[in-house]
Amino acid sequence: MGEKYQALVARLSEIRNVDRARAILSWDQQVNMPRGGAKARAAQLSTLSRIGHDMLISDETRHLLQDAEKETEDAAYDSVEGSMIRVTKRDVHQATCVPTQLVADITEAEALGHQVWAEARANNNFAAFEPALQRILDLKRQEADFLGFVEHPYDAFLDQYEPGMTASRVKRLFDAHKSELVELVVAVSAHSDRANDAVVRQSYPIDKQRAFGLKMVSNYGYDFERGRQDEAVHPFCITFAQGDVRITTRFTENYLNPALFGTMHEAGHAMYEQGVAPELEGTPLSRGTSLGVHESQSRLWENVVGRSRNFWSWAYPQLQDTFPDQLKAVDLETFYRSINRIAPSYIRVEADEATYNLHIMVRFELEMALVTGALAVHDLPKAWNERFESYLGIVPPTDKEGVLQDIHWSSGLIGYFPTYAVGNMLAAQYYRQALAAHPTIPDEIGQGKFDTLREWMRINIYQHGRKFTADELTQRITGEPVECGYFVDYLKAKYTDIYGL
Amino acid sequence: MGEKYQALVARLSEIRNVDRARAILSWDQQVNMPRGGAKARAAQLSTLSRIGHDMLISDETRHLLQDAEKETEDAAYDSVEGSMIRVTKRDVHQATCVPTQLVADITEAEALGHQVWAEARANNNFAAFEPALQRILDLKRQEADFLGFVEHPYDAFLDQYEPGMTASRVKRLFDAHKSELVELVVAVSAHSDRANDAVVRQSYPIDKQRAFGLKMVSNYGYDFERGRQDEAVHPFCITFAQGDVRITTRFTENYLNPALFGTMHEAGHAMYEQGVAPELEGTPLSRGTSLGVHESQSRLWENVVGRSRNFWSWAYPQLQDTFPDQLKAVDLETFYRSINRIAPSYIRVEADEATYNLHIMVRFELEMALVTGALAVHDLPKAWNERFESYLGIVPPTDKEGVLQDIHWSSGLIGYFPTYAVGNMLAAQYYRQALAAHPTIPDEIGQGKFDTLREWMRINIYQHGRKFTADELTQRITGEPVECGYFVDYLKAKYTDIYGL
Repeated sequence: MGEKYQALVARLSEIRNVDRARAILSWDQQVNMPRGGAKARAAQLSTLSRIGHDMLISDETRHLLQDAEKETEDAAYDSVEGSMIRVTKRDVHQATCVPTQLVADITEAEALGHQVWAEARANNNFAAFEPALQRILDLKRQEADFLGFVEHPYDAFLDQYEPGMTASRVKRLFDAHKSELVELVVAVSAHSDRANDAVVRQSYPIDKQRAFGLKMVSNYGYDFERGRQDEAVHPFCITFAQGDVRITTRFTENYLNPALFGTMHEAGHAMYEQGVAPELEGTPLSRGTSLGVHESQSRLWENVVGRSRNFWSWAYPQLQDTFPDQLKAVDLETFYRSINRIAPSYIRVEADEATYNLHIMVRFELEMALVTGALAVHDLPKAWNERFESYLGIVPPTDKEGVLQDIHWSSGLIGYFPTYAVGNMLAAQYYRQALAAHPTIPDEIGQGKFDTLREWMRINIYQHGRKFTADELTQRITGEPVECGYFVDYLKAKYTDIYGL
Repeated sequence: MGEKYQALVARLSEIRNVDRARAILSWDQQVNMPRGGAKARAAQLSTLSRIGHDMLISDETRHLLQDAEKETEDAAYDSVEGSMIRVTKRDVHQATCVPTQLVADITEAEALGHQVWAEARANNNFAAFEPALQRILDLKRQEADFLGFVEHPYDAFLDQYEPGMTASRVKRLFDAHKSELVELVVAVSAHSDRANDAVVRQSYPIDKQRAFGLKMVSNYGYDFERGRQDEAVHPFCITFAQGDVRITTRFTENYLNPALFGTMHEAGHAMYEQGVAPELEGTPLSRGTSLGVHESQSRLWENVVGRSRNFWSWAYPQLQDTFPDQLKAVDLETFYRSINRIAPSYIRVEADEATYNLHIMVRFELEMALVTGALAVHDLPKAWNERFESYLGIVPPTDKEGVLQDIHWSSGLIGYFPTYAVGNMLAAQYYRQALAAHPTIPDEIGQGKFDTLREWMRINIYQHGRKFTADELTQRITGEPVECGYFVDYLKAKYTDIYGL
């Protein structure tokens, strides 16, 4: 490594330290902060945000980047050096291409939007949210022009969360499996008596839920010497360092699923972050490469592993020991079906594996139409309900359970939803590849052994951090870009069995 | 407020935000951080420290300060504006007068020193610590020259913690009450059968200890909407905002005192920070003015209130209800004496009210001699033991329980110890003044009412933040500088009664 490259990395580490400090303040805000700290904390976060941004777009950073780029021009594409320059150029570009005033206007509109949305949702009053959402859409549309796009302004947003992904590719992927999902859900509905969730909706003492969840994800390989779990209203995973990747969860006394599968989900994110190559620590490359790839890991460990029959053939006796009053008389198959019940529901975050992507498709199609103006904000609730009924067969009784349920649009997160669906597809696609390399994985899961699977993920995905884009990574691993077929195959096989289709 | 003054305050708030962010990282480091996070956290703290320092000494801040000073030259001495300029000038001077290289050398020597000391203490091997301590002393001596002093280099260190205090004043204060303390301790030793601590050394379940301590300090007026308590190895109080002032404590199952009185102690610090005038929030004036004044509050609420007979006449029935197995058969007087037992001991942090300042005097006199070179580092253990015996009548069996016990010197904190003793003196001095204004305070304490006392402290001390120095504040309140007589009077009256002298 040359001198100029090292100088760049040192500078990037300083910037990274500021960003990570901001993450720590944000974690504390959600986990510990007493009410009285809110106002000052917002100001502290804002100061750190500004400092980090200023450092990234400073002349000093640009000059270091230019010098380091010249010095490393012979670096291989997949080398750390080559990737560092490439990713940093991209980060600097994204941080500079939108005028400061527009960034400030968007930040303000989002802050206001979030407040208005929270109230509108509480009062089930979409009309109250309309002007704020319109303002956000107008500003985001301007932002798209500055960010740049080839086909569709929506691509500019997608690119921030899932670099390289485009609206037309998302549309093709969604169109390719929408009707199959709808058919699966309809087919299942004729056999709905085969699974019900009564057994997981008993009373489960929270201390025991916590201990059991921690035990499961410790077995997965989430390293608690380099992480911890706390409680928060909205569960999340957050990284302060490779050696300090934390998860949060939310416990529901009368429902086993949210904390148990939520813990597995966040641990999937956390293992990705813990598994980045140590040599990338402290640099912009030391994190997951895209939201979709990140979600592939959370969904893999939550659903593909955590809701599999093999997993529970090992884990269920332990769960019965933990909750004898609730589960002693419940056999494995009944429990297994109870955690894999498919049924259309209104709320995305509570959706099952099979209906989840349908929730996303509704949002994606409406977002696209909102961004172009083809759909007026005023007509959004009607459009939501119509589309929801056509995909899921039910109509939300209120906007609170419909168009107002998600925080995303009020926070300017347009183009974010498709990454959840991409995660579901990639989870199945990567898992298939892992099985091809190691056919013993399902049996190992049945014995509570997760090393082979986790190591395959670490070597093929985790260690690379942001060196490769999601597409590059998926091509390297599977020889093709993200596809929906493996996800559909996975669902069909699993639910044909469960529901006796 | 003029435009330039406002611009200065905005700049100082940004700097303050960076400092407070650093405090949050530090709190998390001590309370939550998994082991794996240590290395990255050190780097994050270092980055924030450098950024905050650079912002404070930047040309931008200096120019804003100069402009604001001109603009506010007519501001009264005790106005917020006048105080802001005065204190900021002082802060900028202190941050700039020591060359960057020396600061870096000291930081490095302290980091190394701390590590070497921890090992030396564990191995009871003072010789291993000698070179590191010598290096720290050499560098600190250079620092004193840059900081500046009139009489004694020690003044330069004292001035950082207790602005305006000098070594000669400390010496005068200590000489004025040393022999009285020694005599009191000797007198008590002849009646040592009057108090023993067996009752507080029973098993006290930690959950109940926690709940009882929180109840007591809530009654004091520590506002948990603007604070919280967590566990940490070394208890402390830390401020993130006026609305977020946190304390930590350490629980010992078999000893009631550490957590109970430790919680009162830290809550005393916290109420000071919570009580600063809201208009000072976010500025350099929003914190306690000196370590000594801060310690006056922790010692007041821990000892003057929390170890008083009036307090326990109200609190003891509640403590008995909380721990009936341990205390049902123990009468108030026995309990009261058990928490006020006087006996020479080796470890400062476990010392009682009467011997505490003697521990400080040992350290102060040795520090003075070390700084001038009158005492060689090599001779320090011998000097420690001799002086310890002459003041406390006992000789530490090992250096671990003697000269190696405190972290301070290894961390470059020369001149820090006297502030603890100043705190004890000021607690008695301020309390006497509060009683003069409100003679009903002791009776109110006996009814669990602390408003009058706390409000007196808030109005006379807390609200001013750093507007006044410790001397200015003490003069304003009591009409004289810090004195030791009130503290001695307080001890004599209390322990004459307890020990029937």
